[in-house]
Formats: sequence, structure tokens, C-alpha cells
Amino acid sequence: MVHNYFAEQDIAKSYRLLNIGATTLIGASYEGDLDYMAAAWAGVCDFDKGYAIIDKSHYTRPLIEKSGRFVLCYPTVGIVKQVMKLGSISKNDDKDKLEHSGAELIELPGISMPVPKGCAAYLEYEVIPNAQMEQSIDMFLGKCVKVISDTRVYHNNHWHFDSADESLRTLHYVAGGHFYAIGKEIYLPEYGDD
Amino acid sequence: MVHNYFAEQDIAKSYRLLNIGATTLIGASYEGDLDYMAAAWAGVCDFDKGYAIIDKSHYTRPLIEKSGRFVLCYPTVGIVKQVMKLGSISKNDDKDKLEHSGAELIELPGISMPVPKGCAAYLEYEVIPNAQMEQSIDMFLGKCVKVISDTRVYHNNHWHFDSADESLRTLHYVAGGHFYAIGKEIYLPEYGDD
Repeated sequence: MVHNYFAEQDIAKSYRLLNIGATTLIGASYEGDLDYMAAAWAGVCDFDKGYAIIDKSHYTRPLIEKSGRFVLCYPTVGIVKQVMKLGSISKNDDKDKLEHSGAELIELPGISMPVPKGCAAYLEYEVIPNAQMEQSIDMFLGKCVKVISDTRVYHNNHWHFDSADESLRTLHYVAGGHFYAIGKEIYLPEYGDD
Repeated sequence: MVHNYFAEQDIAKSYRLLNIGATTLIGASYEGDLDYMAAAWAGVCDFDKGYAIIDKSHYTRPLIEKSGRFVLCYPTVGIVKQVMKLGSISKNDDKDKLEHSGAELIELPGISMPVPKGCAAYLEYEVIPNAQMEQSIDMFLGKCVKVISDTRVYHNNHWHFDSADESLRTLHYVAGGHFYAIGKEIYLPEYGDD
């Protein structure tokens, strides 16, 4: 079921979703084999391009290499336990990892694979092949082709955490089970734009 | 003057400083010509490596190319106005940009250039040359050679925002004068480590 608080957002402004540096869930699917991994080392590298650093040991990596696609999801406080499980269990060791994580998968219009419920935003990327970066620093580049947000926290090209429930704040992982949620807004109106 | 709350930190664990995705000030200096620019597109790409995306229009870029070094600083709420000025004025247009930003420069042991006071951490990198990435996506890679933190918010390889003043929280830039400070800690002790 698609909830009515999801809506498509402007790709050209989607760097604003990624700029705050939240921890991601990286998803990929090939011939029905879906995986999600948690990753802090993923984000934005141009106004319409993202990147994801994915070590060769990860189950997710060949799914990206074979499908040429990945999804970056921005999980919120409400699913922190599921995020931690998705980041600490490998599908190499547990083929039912997704079920065991407790993540609820949903379908979103325009996103080519099921995504975990409870994220502030979902961005799909088409891989921009670059063998040198993929091999040397495990970095995959992607061109953003679709952006869907939870409009309770992101709409009109801006975050709106302050008017939403605390459980909808983005997660910023440190290490060893420690996260921070995004906090208070600071606005300098003399630099304000649209 | 070096304040006594600064201390060197473990490079091997320094990814924990960067994982939360805070906005940076990128610094570089060549033959006494120093510049700082604000950048959300910089961070960690391996346990001891960082990256910075620096468009060819930035004054800072040739300083990095010629010196082979850059510094990533993690500014806090207390200097948000200086950060915004460092991010919105180019030294191409104002040679006295640093003075006009209001940033106070200090010297730190082991860091090769003056740094802006009011940051949670300062990391110096030696550029790992990669012409393809520098030219194609404006990404500079660096090996971390020194880490200094403000121990009021980061020590023993962990952040300690909750016991520090609110003005010492990291900044996470969106766009158009909008920032968020880092927020509340969430800890899942079953995943706890050192």
C-alpha cells in the first residue's frame, strides 16, 4: 500500500535532501534478489548525482553491478532498530536478512524495487560506470532518476522536521550502536532563497 | 593561542567524526595564501581517507593542487554566520575574504595551516592524486595525517554532544541559509563497542 504522504520531488533540488549527511540504506535488486545495507558513506556528489561506497564483501554490490541501479533511502528514528539490523547482518550469511531485520517493504511509484517503510526519502540512481573508482575506492556513482519523499518532513524542496513527529527525523550513525537524530533548525534569512 | 580543550585523536577511528555527515570548512594554503570554503560535499570514503568535491571555480582548488594538502574542519553552531560567509564569498572576488568573514584563525599543533576557531574537529589530509576523479567529478581524495578535536564534544573516539553546550553542535547545511544542528543521541546498547 502506498501512503498518501509520499510524493515525487524535484531531482534538480534533491541535493538538499542529501546535504545534511544522514545515514542511508542502500538498496539494489537483480532478477528478484533484493538487498538493503546500511551505509554512512553515501550521499551527493553533484546536483543530480549520488555516490555509494560499497566494499567488495557486501552482498548488495554485485546486485548493483548486474542491475546498473541502486536506491538511497534516508531512514528515520522510527526504524533505527531495523537499520541497525540491515547494517549488521549480511545476506551472505542470512538469505532471509530482510525479513529478519523487521523492515516492512513497500512499493512506491517510479521506484523500481520495494523499499523499506519509514524513510524520509527514496532516491533511485542509474549507475554511471567508472571502473577505476569502483575498483580503487569502491565508489559507485549514479545519476538520480527519481525522488520520492515523505512529505511530512520534506516538501517544496525543503526539510520540515520541526513540524513533524520526532520519530521522522533522519539518523546520523557514529559507530557501535550510536546514532544522532538531526536536530534544531538554524535559519539565516539574509541568505534565504526559494 | 591554543586552548586546552584541543587534543589529538586516533586517525584509525576518525571516520566516527565524519560519519554523521556534518557540513565542512575546507581549507588549503600555498605559499602563505590561505583560503577556507564551506562545503557539504566532503567527508569520509575509507577509514583513514577523506574526500572533498571542489568545483574548478573555487579559489581553494588550486591551493590544494599546488600544496597537495587540505584540511576538513567541522564548524559548530557558534560560528554559523562565519560559515555562511565563508561559503558565499569567493576569494576570487574579495582577497580579504577570511577577515571579512569574521572567522578567528588559530594555530593547532600538527596542523600545517591556521584554522578557524569554533570547530568540533580539524582533520588534515595529504592528497592522493587521481587525475580522473579530480577532472571528471571534481573529487579530491586525501589520506588523513592528523586529527585534532575539541574534547568538549569529541574524545575517546566518541561524540559527546549531550554533555556540551548547544553552541558546540555540528552544522548540517540544506540550502538558502537553512541549517540543522545535530540532535539527540540514540544508543542501541546491544550493538555497543569501545
